[in-house]
Amino acid sequence: MTRESVGVGLMGLGTVAGQVARVLLDRSKMLAERAGCPIELRKIKIIPADLERPLARELPAGLLTTSEDEFFAEAGIDIVVEAIGGEYPALEYHRRAMSGGRHVVTSNKEVVAKNWAELMALAQQHNVQLRYEASVGGGIPLIAPFQDDLAANEIRTIYAIINGTTNFILTKMTREGTDFAAALKQAQKLGYAEANPANDIEGIDSTYKLAILASLAFQTHVRPDDIHHEGISRLASRDFRYARELGLAIKLLAIGKQAGKAIEARVHPVLIPEDTFLAKVDGVYNAVMVEGDLVGKVLFFGEGAGALPTSSAVVADIVALARDTALGVTGWPRPRLDADKKVRPMSEIETRYYLRMTVADRPGVLARIATAFGDHHISISSVIQQETDRTAGTAEIVIMTHPAQEKAVQAALDELARLDEVGEISNFIRVEDV
Amino acid sequence: MTRESVGVGLMGLGTVAGQVARVLLDRSKMLAERAGCPIELRKIKIIPADLERPLARELPAGLLTTSEDEFFAEAGIDIVVEAIGGEYPALEYHRRAMSGGRHVVTSNKEVVAKNWAELMALAQQHNVQLRYEASVGGGIPLIAPFQDDLAANEIRTIYAIINGTTNFILTKMTREGTDFAAALKQAQKLGYAEANPANDIEGIDSTYKLAILASLAFQTHVRPDDIHHEGISRLASRDFRYARELGLAIKLLAIGKQAGKAIEARVHPVLIPEDTFLAKVDGVYNAVMVEGDLVGKVLFFGEGAGALPTSSAVVADIVALARDTALGVTGWPRPRLDADKKVRPMSEIETRYYLRMTVADRPGVLARIATAFGDHHISISSVIQQETDRTAGTAEIVIMTHPAQEKAVQAALDELARLDEVGEISNFIRVEDV
Repeated sequence: MTRESVGVGLMGLGTVAGQVARVLLDRSKMLAERAGCPIELRKIKIIPADLERPLARELPAGLLTTSEDEFFAEAGIDIVVEAIGGEYPALEYHRRAMSGGRHVVTSNKEVVAKNWAELMALAQQHNVQLRYEASVGGGIPLIAPFQDDLAANEIRTIYAIINGTTNFILTKMTREGTDFAAALKQAQKLGYAEANPANDIEGIDSTYKLAILASLAFQTHVRPDDIHHEGISRLASRDFRYARELGLAIKLLAIGKQAGKAIEARVHPVLIPEDTFLAKVDGVYNAVMVEGDLVGKVLFFGEGAGALPTSSAVVADIVALARDTALGVTGWPRPRLDADKKVRPMSEIETRYYLRMTVADRPGVLARIATAFGDHHISISSVIQQETDRTAGTAEIVIMTHPAQEKAVQAALDELARLDEVGEISNFIRVEDV
Repeated sequence: MTRESVGVGLMGLGTVAGQVARVLLDRSKMLAERAGCPIELRKIKIIPADLERPLARELPAGLLTTSEDEFFAEAGIDIVVEAIGGEYPALEYHRRAMSGGRHVVTSNKEVVAKNWAELMALAQQHNVQLRYEASVGGGIPLIAPFQDDLAANEIRTIYAIINGTTNFILTKMTREGTDFAAALKQAQKLGYAEANPANDIEGIDSTYKLAILASLAFQTHVRPDDIHHEGISRLASRDFRYARELGLAIKLLAIGKQAGKAIEARVHPVLIPEDTFLAKVDGVYNAVMVEGDLVGKVLFFGEGAGALPTSSAVVADIVALARDTALGVTGWPRPRLDADKKVRPMSEIETRYYLRMTVADRPGVLARIATAFGDHHISISSVIQQETDRTAGTAEIVIMTHPAQEKAVQAALDELARLDEVGEISNFIRVEDV
């Protein structure tokens, strides 16, 4: 079957959607060659405020509509591109598009992360495809490699820096000794962090992205709610000083692991060796390291956000679907999901720990602490005692443990907090060998 | 259209082919799910020596044949996997497979690099596909990302470390101050370099791989013969010492650039800033950095060779073709090649240069040298004069230039070589801002 052309309907005209429209219009010849048939932008669903955008004034008025019903009634749309973000009404739009036999391309991490299994099933049921390359890591090819290029592998681990805002802040804190509040302020000033930065700095954005990568890699729906997440606001500049002394870097990592039916999926600050690739991912860049049983470790690196990189991913998805449509392919087979796989409770994970605390500066204290750890079968690999406050009679110590279970470490910390000799447990950070 | 199963014919039973056979047999259930239909290994073309391999004895005898005619007569083969390497007879096998309406999957960089345009045309003519993910970078997803995920981009530059042997040797020389011969010997001892290492150390292997990446990225056949290549054997341990002093690292890079219709494609040792990602790619690892006008810089990193990673790529290609076959898709559209694009002669490239030479240790020498450069419109950015041999009355100097044309630099070097004051031009290395 050959087609005269393939029609695209775009939902949204914000930064990403606007850039997608420009690429579709400006590069139509090149894209038609790559797809094997012309790709035509047939309708754009906007909100009234979009009419103020310069692009809205450049486009033929007939292309724009504020009415969903008019948008979905447009007969010539084969592919619906949803770039409005958020779970609602995006989810309704996905359902409506797929039920109507249209493929969907989206850059919306939240709607995909929360509804991955439903959306996959819906696509299969209606013999269409859902593509979401732009939902994780901007233009870095991740979804297609996970889905296709690593298809022969059992994926073992994912270690990902997938939030540019937090990585920018951590880079500042590492390089300049800045404290968290000042680094955040600078990120906001440069437009890397929003006025309300909670979604980024609390790790929620990373959680959505990890949910998508882990669901694909482990072939089971890992929901954002299944993912333990901690943000970066409790990191102090002294943690960075100790980290450097230990030859470690602090990164906010999204971690996925699979062993048999047990999955780990968690987002939190992590100490990693400073001579590793992930430790060297600076500023707003993203990187995803994935380990497969055949391929070994593979790393993908690039700009994780921004209108241009994101449009690169959205348009690649459109081209792939246009090519399939031109060839007469509709839905693609998808492996059955494995509902037996379960995300491990955080209490059961096992890793190494960095613990920083203020203790009384007197003989026997370290022995008491070591005993508390020993009672919980946690073995200590090193202790740094560096700063002593002679006036207060306290010292700050940093303890590094050998691999231990989270639950045991939490219990030991509870016990330590009750000791007279321990003034404050200032921080604890998990350590990973990436 | 649905299919009962898709048939694979394997050519070769060496390290890679043997591993591919194992994966197809051991993971048949998982692969069938991912392809949407069972994938069956129906025939293996071997040479008599392969019969001695342990795997040959495990396989049903009926699966093996030493006869090409018998192999190609097997009716149930949809996909021919060629993993024998070298241009001949591989090229004949590709032609025969595609003429017979079979898709081809290959890990053979030489045959693809030398015959890319012909093979692409043949695939189109016979409505089949040629896939070659394993031909560059082992299991690192590169071909599919270049072809599909970056489809919306104009690719500007490629900087690639795509030969593990040379990167292992350079890493040794950097870290341990080893000289080239000793580092090569160690690579041979560890099995990273062959007894006859010319193909790797002269940059020929990298040339094949660059030809493939550049052809795909620039949509014109960049032939290995069009690519200027220099190996690493002329690098001395003192070059590494100077590099460190300058904050630079030495890597064998495969470089592709595109500006309008002009393409650059070259393989040679390069000095790059030591705090960049590519500088930190150590040992036998590979990394490819590509810059697109939308996506910005994207980097792919992983193991570039070995049976397991390579089998990961070959099997991914088989799964993709099996899925297409099950869906009734045959050939894919391919953009027309742009025959107007031309690879620039090396003399026309412009970059910065590192030049190491022995000169007479007396007043006025530097002025004479600087004048020679000035006469060729080359401006010097820095000079290091460090070691003086008082007995011989000579000094070694290292000159770093600002960007200059290769032709001018070569002319200046010719002139310098004729000066009485210049004893020897010991090395010159191009410098790139990756």
